Amino acid sequence: MAPRVLICSKIVWAHDDVKRLLGDIADIVWVDSPDRKSFLAEFGPGGKYENTVAIYRENDSAAKLGVFDKALIDGLPSTVRWIAHNGAGYDPVDVHACKARGIYLSNTPGAVDDATATTALYLLLSTMRQYSVAERSLRALTWKPAGLNKRSHDITGKTLAILGLGGIGTRLAHLVQGFPMRVIYHSRNKNPDAPSFCEYFANVEEMLAQADVLSVHVPLRAETVGLVGEKMIRALKPGAIIINTARGKVIDEDALIRALEDGHLAAAGLDVFPNEPEVNPRFLDFPQVTLLPHMGTENQDSQKAMEVRALQNVRDFLLTGKGRDLVVEFKNNTPKVKQKL
Amino acid sequence: MAPRVLICSKIVWAHDDVKRLLGDIADIVWVDSPDRKSFLAEFGPGGKYENTVAIYRENDSAAKLGVFDKALIDGLPSTVRWIAHNGAGYDPVDVHACKARGIYLSNTPGAVDDATATTALYLLLSTMRQYSVAERSLRALTWKPAGLNKRSHDITGKTLAILGLGGIGTRLAHLVQGFPMRVIYHSRNKNPDAPSFCEYFANVEEMLAQADVLSVHVPLRAETVGLVGEKMIRALKPGAIIINTARGKVIDEDALIRALEDGHLAAAGLDVFPNEPEVNPRFLDFPQVTLLPHMGTENQDSQKAMEVRALQNVRDFLLTGKGRDLVVEFKNNTPKVKQKL
Repeated sequence: MAPRVLICSKIVWAHDDVKRLLGDIADIVWVDSPDRKSFLAEFGPGGKYENTVAIYRENDSAAKLGVFDKALIDGLPSTVRWIAHNGAGYDPVDVHACKARGIYLSNTPGAVDDATATTALYLLLSTMRQYSVAERSLRALTWKPAGLNKRSHDITGKTLAILGLGGIGTRLAHLVQGFPMRVIYHSRNKNPDAPSFCEYFANVEEMLAQADVLSVHVPLRAETVGLVGEKMIRALKPGAIIINTARGKVIDEDALIRALEDGHLAAAGLDVFPNEPEVNPRFLDFPQVTLLPHMGTENQDSQKAMEVRALQNVRDFLLTGKGRDLVVEFKNNTPKVKQKL
Repeated sequence: MAPRVLICSKIVWAHDDVKRLLGDIADIVWVDSPDRKSFLAEFGPGGKYENTVAIYRENDSAAKLGVFDKALIDGLPSTVRWIAHNGAGYDPVDVHACKARGIYLSNTPGAVDDATATTALYLLLSTMRQYSVAERSLRALTWKPAGLNKRSHDITGKTLAILGLGGIGTRLAHLVQGFPMRVIYHSRNKNPDAPSFCEYFANVEEMLAQADVLSVHVPLRAETVGLVGEKMIRALKPGAIIINTARGKVIDEDALIRALEDGHLAAAGLDVFPNEPEVNPRFLDFPQVTLLPHMGTENQDSQKAMEVRALQNVRDFLLTGKGRDLVVEFKNNTPKVKQKL
């Protein structure tokens, strides 16, 4: 009998691809458990999910099963060997619990780069040029706010600092070359694949001092919670702008609000928040801030590509025991220790 | 005595440049007439504006003097030889009246390209990805509208049609190369300076049939009023998007509204309207439409560059009798006849 694969989340765009990629090689079971307890119970003898070897999931499954935390991972039987998470950020899955249980975890890194970097570019344009507040003024039937040109700048020739030059940051670096912007970046290590026009700064504060805009592209890990805090924010020039399309918790929200209040930051463009879908109402008080409801990859082309890529990881695992999108914690094959960004 | 130059509009950013460019070679007079009648009266014998040879103006002067229509132009004395208009679109100055009176007219073409093309790019991102409606939803405390991904697309790989490949259209073509988009264009004639990646279509409807997005970049002239009308709009694919950062009257507003109503167009991004600052309230009914209050060049960097460029035209005229930004009607040196775009 073909190995059993659970589809834990709704497939929105890639229905045909489920059949194409898994139809001949897997026993596909669509999860319909109403809650976490009944979900875990079905892995038992005679249960619908017995002998499952791989699980496809994405964040929308949170409604039924919650995040894949240690309790859930520990409740899975030892037959489960692979979780294919649909998404770039895999913080909703406890990777350490997976490692401890010998369950591999993959994500969909490349598939999200273009759409997420586009969202960052949109926030950059909106905040540098103050388009969003302008539209709100028009829609309030007051045409253009007075003095908007004083708070608005050309993008061309300005300096973009990228914190974390992975796939999304690199894609954004390419997108702003049309202007061009000067692109500087800081990562834990110099990225050997960085485009030649990206200047590396080993010292994050030296980078920040030169930035007109900081765009945040680090994953959420224990060591990145609050990473962009008072010290980093104050290392930016007065009048700088912060863009965040990564995860809300990477920025110290209180420090960000203080810097908007006292004018140290000219603006901010936020696609992510610490407790989505909640948004700190203080942000609504700042007209110069552009706020998006996690639109990162919110479009059918990218979402289909992400579904296909996550399914491909399941297929590759079934056929070869490997998958190209194994998350970094498995590539190193040693548990991560707390470290600097 | 140095030739007299009138500064007819407020100089916001380039005060030092007024002195630098004109201080030594002109008698600079700042216009303070409360209305058109008293303005024209001061050109008479003994008046403050007597013997004026050149006039700097931009559209904000409209409040006092109105547009530079035939009546105003005909009221100027024969000493006036040059009007340096600050702006790319010079439809607020009657160029035919200028020609009839032997008054040269210059604009500031290159200085607006970057900022206006950036506005077009913003509208393209906002409508293709539905960011603007997403922000309104968040600000109404309803997080993300359901099904937004179904109306949202990646930009990469889509086809952008540019109507009028001048400076602004060409700049936009460059800005979308980072994705890239396929760029196709139609102009009266093939642009010999077009980048190699821009495909020319002599037949506008053949171009429109291939476009995911149409961006309008033609000047407002008698022959371009309502140019983008029912026929062109219906030549677009169902689900296409129209962006306008040129002039409101270039689009047949009723035809545009019909196409949004019946869903032929998925969205529109409008920075310009036929009777600014009035906006047809029907547009407010379409959540998928992004509406900006003529933000084209609304930023201090570009606005300073435009002021400097218009002042430079005055300087060049005073020193050489020529200026590089003489508008096209003078370059041809024959009156324009009504012609196809």
